[in-house]
Amino acid sequence: MTERHMPPPLRFLLAARRSELQDLETLARSCDLVVRIGALAHALQKERGYSNLCLCSGDARMRPALADLSHEALTLEAEVRRMLDGLAADPAAGRARARLLNSIAHSLFRLDELAGLRRQVRDLRVPAADADARFTQAIGSLLAVVFEAADAALDPDVTRHLVALLNFMQGKELSGQERACGVMGYTAGSFTDAQKVRMLGLAASQERSFGIFAQYAEPAARQAWQQIQQQAEEMRRMRAMAQRTSAGQPLDAGLAEIWFQLCTARIDAMRGLESLLAQALAQACAQRIADARQELHDRRLLLSRHAEHASGRLPSMVYSVQGRVVDQPPADGAGDELERSILDMMREQALRMQRADEALAAARGALDEARRVDRAKLILISRHGLTEQAAHERLQRAAMEAGLSLSDVARQIIEQAAA
Amino acid sequence: MTERHMPPPLRFLLAARRSELQDLETLARSCDLVVRIGALAHALQKERGYSNLCLCSGDARMRPALADLSHEALTLEAEVRRMLDGLAADPAAGRARARLLNSIAHSLFRLDELAGLRRQVRDLRVPAADADARFTQAIGSLLAVVFEAADAALDPDVTRHLVALLNFMQGKELSGQERACGVMGYTAGSFTDAQKVRMLGLAASQERSFGIFAQYAEPAARQAWQQIQQQAEEMRRMRAMAQRTSAGQPLDAGLAEIWFQLCTARIDAMRGLESLLAQALAQACAQRIADARQELHDRRLLLSRHAEHASGRLPSMVYSVQGRVVDQPPADGAGDELERSILDMMREQALRMQRADEALAAARGALDEARRVDRAKLILISRHGLTEQAAHERLQRAAMEAGLSLSDVARQIIEQAAA
Repeated sequence: MTERHMPPPLRFLLAARRSELQDLETLARSCDLVVRIGALAHALQKERGYSNLCLCSGDARMRPALADLSHEALTLEAEVRRMLDGLAADPAAGRARARLLNSIAHSLFRLDELAGLRRQVRDLRVPAADADARFTQAIGSLLAVVFEAADAALDPDVTRHLVALLNFMQGKELSGQERACGVMGYTAGSFTDAQKVRMLGLAASQERSFGIFAQYAEPAARQAWQQIQQQAEEMRRMRAMAQRTSAGQPLDAGLAEIWFQLCTARIDAMRGLESLLAQALAQACAQRIADARQELHDRRLLLSRHAEHASGRLPSMVYSVQGRVVDQPPADGAGDELERSILDMMREQALRMQRADEALAAARGALDEARRVDRAKLILISRHGLTEQAAHERLQRAAMEAGLSLSDVARQIIEQAAA
Repeated sequence: MTERHMPPPLRFLLAARRSELQDLETLARSCDLVVRIGALAHALQKERGYSNLCLCSGDARMRPALADLSHEALTLEAEVRRMLDGLAADPAAGRARARLLNSIAHSLFRLDELAGLRRQVRDLRVPAADADARFTQAIGSLLAVVFEAADAALDPDVTRHLVALLNFMQGKELSGQERACGVMGYTAGSFTDAQKVRMLGLAASQERSFGIFAQYAEPAARQAWQQIQQQAEEMRRMRAMAQRTSAGQPLDAGLAEIWFQLCTARIDAMRGLESLLAQALAQACAQRIADARQELHDRRLLLSRHAEHASGRLPSMVYSVQGRVVDQPPADGAGDELERSILDMMREQALRMQRADEALAAARGALDEARRVDRAKLILISRHGLTEQAAHERLQRAAMEAGLSLSDVARQIIEQAAA
């Protein structure tokens, strides 16, 4: 029996399954976008770090290597742009779609700005802190896209992978920012009080992001992360050293290079793990899609057999099950069984979605927190005219002073703004 | 400048607005469905009540009037079915879509069952309690569709209207169930203990549903509701009388008719208010769509002017804003202003959506509770083989005994089932 000829309840039951499959396919595209943006963010992080080193050292011999890094970032950017264009044309609407498009608009705007910045870096015509802030803004806007894209995720298993990856990306970006801040301090020979506070904040935020990552990651990924952590002893010593510096007793500026190398080795190792996480995510997506396809196929066969059986018995009715519950049972007892199995399917489907919803709510909580912090920053930026970095620092300070989490402080700010 | 030639950030900014408009249009269709299902549910409630009276009295003279009511319900059902078919063809995916389609499958299954039931009622061949349960199942499945359809609502103002209407529909349905239960008790001359518990539970659930309705309704609707409440004095007296009955001292069976009339007058008044709520909902939808269209139009004009201005100044660049922040400002200062206004637009859009999200979360909480109770019932039905009514009663008893809300008990059941 073709689906078009099936009785309406069965047709809708199949349509529900098909809709789940479509959601998964949309999710797979989002995951793909996340992975590509991860690669672009990594390239921009490298470029930011090296630009920073160039500008701090004022050494023009670094130019060719820097040009290579810019070229690499631009190649990946072109790829991301192609994907985004496809996404804009995708008719699939959805809860987070307007927000996703808005975040894409913002990140394209920030990427456009980088062209001018790159010229200035090449000519050593921009303060290191400014260049750093611009790159950070562009990377931050890309991570915001990734968080919005993940909001459409409806599958708990895939969402757990996404939460692990996204928080890892976030932690890695904070490591990049710490690298840049450290290079500036060590080049100057000492850290200002503001820089010290920022270094502490960046370390604390990293811990938080990697903590959430570890909570949602698979055992293998967690283990790989522990190895990376164990190799970070020296970097942690230099973190502590930074806090003890003072303008009166400047350190050797050569330490900047060592700090840069230590951080870079760590970030490169993170990139390796990030790729593993991306692979695991892609596999989880593919597996769920294959399962959903098979289930849809099985379900279609089963329902089609049911419907044929039913229509054979009572050809005059659209759907023979109707009314039978309170009528006499058919002589062979098959009708009852048929009805029970269809009702069971509907219940099973509803319960499965319910369980998925709950697992999802837990995983989504971690994403929502990150999004809430982003929005609180937006409020600080537009109401108080702060830069993105100043907004982040104000949030961090408020959290430390009140003994609250960043996310709690963000919630307060949002609530006040809405009042 | 046509949109296709706009620089990508502006194109995505417009696409975000357009996506919001599309969401609103989808929402308007859902609201339309809610209204039509409300009309069908009302017709089925009338038919259930009259069937109940027919079966309890055993009076065959009621048949023609009953046939009219069946005919009315079938006419409305045909309309709802046409709408549902359109909905299945609608390509708009979304968070709650698979669940919505599943709930539609279930309600079509239940509606199909009514054909047989109607024959049995006509021939007085079915116990009143059974007929009542079947109608209640069908109406319950329709209300479940309405709750799922509302889950796609993304606009806080419209969602508030929806929450008010949906909870009112729920309360009205509980009033219909109470009417039926009362008719059975008063016809028998007294209420069994189980019937007394059920009557108490139905009154308590009504209070809860109407309480949520009143919390989200506009002042005019709240006032109309107070008037209906004031006219329910006699019905409340008969509620109390039902609790005092005993098999030893049966009341006059003629009270059944009086109870039926009192309840019916109240439910008809509710239907009047329900129609008002539906109108208010439709107006809220239409207003938001008109606003969103106008905003999109204004935004398109503004951005197009910006883009033309920018491309006139720097024809060689895709989008002149790029890089300018850290470059020297252009001589006329217009570039800075242009950039600021675009960033402002992006931020304003993000903040507006954030505020909408929060208002939505509050309103949605009320819907989620109702959905949670439905799912807990599903679990009881499939795990313990209970009927829908038995499942509801078990939930109610558990809530009363534990001094918890229905929704809290439902949460416990769902959590245990997931463990």
